[in-house]
Amino acid sequence: MKTRVGIYGYGNLGKGIELALRSAEDLELVAVFTRRDPAKVKLVDPKVPVCSVKTISDYQDKIDVMILCGGSATDLPQQTPELVKLFNVIDSFDTHARIPEHFAHVNSEALAHQHIALISAGWDPGMFSLNRLYANAILPQGKDYTFWGKGVSQGHSDALRRIEGVADARQYTIPVEEALQAVRSGSNPELSTRQKHTRLCYVVLKDGADPKQVTSEIVNMPNYFADYDTTVNFISQEELLRDHQGLPHGGFVFRSGSTGEHQEHKHVIEYSLKLDSNPEFTAQVIVAYTRAIARLHQEGVNGCKTVFDIAPAYLSPLSGEQLRATFL
Amino acid sequence: MKTRVGIYGYGNLGKGIELALRSAEDLELVAVFTRRDPAKVKLVDPKVPVCSVKTISDYQDKIDVMILCGGSATDLPQQTPELVKLFNVIDSFDTHARIPEHFAHVNSEALAHQHIALISAGWDPGMFSLNRLYANAILPQGKDYTFWGKGVSQGHSDALRRIEGVADARQYTIPVEEALQAVRSGSNPELSTRQKHTRLCYVVLKDGADPKQVTSEIVNMPNYFADYDTTVNFISQEELLRDHQGLPHGGFVFRSGSTGEHQEHKHVIEYSLKLDSNPEFTAQVIVAYTRAIARLHQEGVNGCKTVFDIAPAYLSPLSGEQLRATFL
Repeated sequence: MKTRVGIYGYGNLGKGIELALRSAEDLELVAVFTRRDPAKVKLVDPKVPVCSVKTISDYQDKIDVMILCGGSATDLPQQTPELVKLFNVIDSFDTHARIPEHFAHVNSEALAHQHIALISAGWDPGMFSLNRLYANAILPQGKDYTFWGKGVSQGHSDALRRIEGVADARQYTIPVEEALQAVRSGSNPELSTRQKHTRLCYVVLKDGADPKQVTSEIVNMPNYFADYDTTVNFISQEELLRDHQGLPHGGFVFRSGSTGEHQEHKHVIEYSLKLDSNPEFTAQVIVAYTRAIARLHQEGVNGCKTVFDIAPAYLSPLSGEQLRATFL
Repeated sequence: MKTRVGIYGYGNLGKGIELALRSAEDLELVAVFTRRDPAKVKLVDPKVPVCSVKTISDYQDKIDVMILCGGSATDLPQQTPELVKLFNVIDSFDTHARIPEHFAHVNSEALAHQHIALISAGWDPGMFSLNRLYANAILPQGKDYTFWGKGVSQGHSDALRRIEGVADARQYTIPVEEALQAVRSGSNPELSTRQKHTRLCYVVLKDGADPKQVTSEIVNMPNYFADYDTTVNFISQEELLRDHQGLPHGGFVFRSGSTGEHQEHKHVIEYSLKLDSNPEFTAQVIVAYTRAIARLHQEGVNGCKTVFDIAPAYLSPLSGEQLRATFL
């Protein structure tokens, strides 16, 4: 019998989940829930029902896992603890600093309602976190490095669009190649914020806006740009729409450590992602973990989990025997 | 209380385990067991007792996990099922094709004696296997690539030394840079054996041996060299000892896949290792999994496991709370 799945919220991530579920033969999309008018939400597959979130409690016995596709700022801190009362849930909560707090809220509701929740699935947090954990357990003597990009930062693009005179904008975060090479060499460099990433902005100006003034506001913006070498390119709205509509992203996680009687042997572990579509890849990770938590719930496991708590075999549709014969 | 650990067999890997345990504050090395004369085995730490394997049953209540450091060809197929009758055990069995058979033998003895065993820990099998599993679960539409090196292949070095006229030799397996770049680009190339790796040999000739004859025997040797572009360098024994005594290794695991309504978005997942010492890194992985199986045994888990069955959090000495705050 297939695991019955619901999607809560249908933006870029929700659409990615719908697409990812099509390659998962053991999972079945039952319905998509939206706060908008359901008639106005168009899915890739028109046969899947779109329902108002107001009707969600009618689905308590019809859905095994609800995938929450809201944002981390305001949606998930409220939605995940609320929906875990009704369903097993999974989210991609990505405000790193607030994960312990979110975990505590979700865990107490999950235990009280005998459901399982998995929070912070995706690639960072998610696959990058896993690689940090594995690499630190293997090389306790060492140093961690995380780089992001080349990719679109939605937060930085939003920051550009809030500047007066900016009509539209897109910001790419780019890891500095020399820094990557230095880390890869095992030399354990100390790297400042400026040495690790550069920022590349494509900006469409409003009529009459002063490019010098806008550039100055961008490169001096605290937190977002002031600590980086930032390049600002002015382009037309047509160019922005033509060349910068994708949501590529990715990055690199390194652990550079040493072993030996005198720590004389160096080792570098590197994990990297190069993604054409950030939301679609995030969705793929979430769907694999959806399979895992459905299985764990069948085994009687409740409470809040993270990727750290899930044995890898649970992510795959293959049996243990198949996995050992194929991937080990 | 610390987990009490024994080492069974003290070669390169056994020594790596001894060194790795020194960075694991929650693990304690109780004794090293050897088939040789114990008086002739010198540990890094002379305070650790070296015992004959004949006395091992005396240690049944003194050791929580026995780490087996024998070879996969003849030692482990016999030792792991035998020793799991007395101890929880971990090995690095690396004959990929025979893993299902080894698993079955170890599993039945482990269950019968209420112990836990983990087989095939290390980096391939081990960390590379994990990355193949995770990446396949995340990107079901895609293609896998594994490259090894640059590193010393013991099997190929041994094959060189069996040739008449060869006094000593060392063989490096080297991934082809163009092939790595092609895979990294997401183009999903079809690569022949020759296109993926080259082989580099450093050979010391015996007096009077014919270098042309030896070269011809090497480059035409079936399975080992005939399918590769092989370079043979003749050097002196002094040069071999001076420049080629290390055991570096490493490699790359890729999954290159696609998502999207029309599979139009490409994604590349890459995991790579660059290791100065193959046995010491393997030992680090084994020691992290030693912690994991000791904990699982305390929870009442028995039977044979692989890296696929172990939730990542078990590898770390940190608590779940610390892990979420630090690595997620």
